[in-house]
Amino acid sequence: MKLREFINFLLNTDLAHDNELPFSVKQHRFAKGEVITDYGQIEQCAYFMSDGVVQFSVQHGEEEKIIDFFMTNDFVSSYASFLLQKPSDVRILALTECRVEIIDHAEMMEAYRTSLVANQLGRIVAEGAYLTKMKREKDFLTKTAEERYNQLLREKPELILQIPINKIAKYLGIYPESLSRIRKKLIS
Amino acid sequence: MKLREFINFLLNTDLAHDNELPFSVKQHRFAKGEVITDYGQIEQCAYFMSDGVVQFSVQHGEEEKIIDFFMTNDFVSSYASFLLQKPSDVRILALTECRVEIIDHAEMMEAYRTSLVANQLGRIVAEGAYLTKMKREKDFLTKTAEERYNQLLREKPELILQIPINKIAKYLGIYPESLSRIRKKLIS
Repeated sequence: MKLREFINFLLNTDLAHDNELPFSVKQHRFAKGEVITDYGQIEQCAYFMSDGVVQFSVQHGEEEKIIDFFMTNDFVSSYASFLLQKPSDVRILALTECRVEIIDHAEMMEAYRTSLVANQLGRIVAEGAYLTKMKREKDFLTKTAEERYNQLLREKPELILQIPINKIAKYLGIYPESLSRIRKKLIS
Repeated sequence: MKLREFINFLLNTDLAHDNELPFSVKQHRFAKGEVITDYGQIEQCAYFMSDGVVQFSVQHGEEEKIIDFFMTNDFVSSYASFLLQKPSDVRILALTECRVEIIDHAEMMEAYRTSLVANQLGRIVAEGAYLTKMKREKDFLTKTAEERYNQLLREKPELILQIPINKIAKYLGIYPESLSRIRKKLIS
């Protein structure tokens, strides 16, 4: 899907051309394995994922933790860095080739001053980011790794097909061998 | 501060009367100790705190954990419940007498359809909720209780003056005796 189509769907608008959007968008491709935003970088972009899968990670001491995956039709950005214009705590990595549409930070801020559509979009994205954060925190407190894997399977089956098993284990916070046991149990 | 004045400050608008707001507001007082929103309730209101202090708690097994305090000039709501219209995981309790201005959920949703000001406000509140959540999570991972207490002292000194010490300890995730030791160390 294109960002314009996504906005029409989300906001029930009827924008026929990209130049009716309250900001310009640039098409871009990231190669598989490419770093989209790195630790310490100040995020200047919001990306709409027209196609592909990305991983979000944080560094905690020596260890790198995978905290999120995003895919087609998701908005992707080192969001706290984008909002505060401070160095990023997260790294965004393309796990597949990614086709994205890019919104520039300065243009977005300008659009927020006067555009209803920009603010509706920004509000819904921010609400979604908050709810995702809350849900993940709650799931970590109340669900076992097996329950969280089953939930991932139910809610984002495409993700599991496209992501190496060791990365999914890392995301669930368990060893790859534990995830193999969970998967074997499911199949049998 | 009144909500209208807060919006003028936040959005650089110049609304002279409450009836220029894109939704109606109702004045209300909660007594000290009153439950504003309870576990399981579906949140129908967003509250602007004209004056007072509230506590957010969650139930985790037998235990009740304090996860947040809000005070004068903050927006307060069981936010996930408000957004999704699902039962609340949190309880909001008035720690002092609270003067609030209330926005009704249905009116807010209606205002979101057409009002720039409502969407700017909703966006900024959602972004703030996300950033607060991220910061608290990061602080818990990277800072000691002593560092977090010092930070609270720096960022919200008024809070510490108004909240019983055992509640602050609960919020920091430590025993009241440990907090007493931290405070003694600071004074000496």
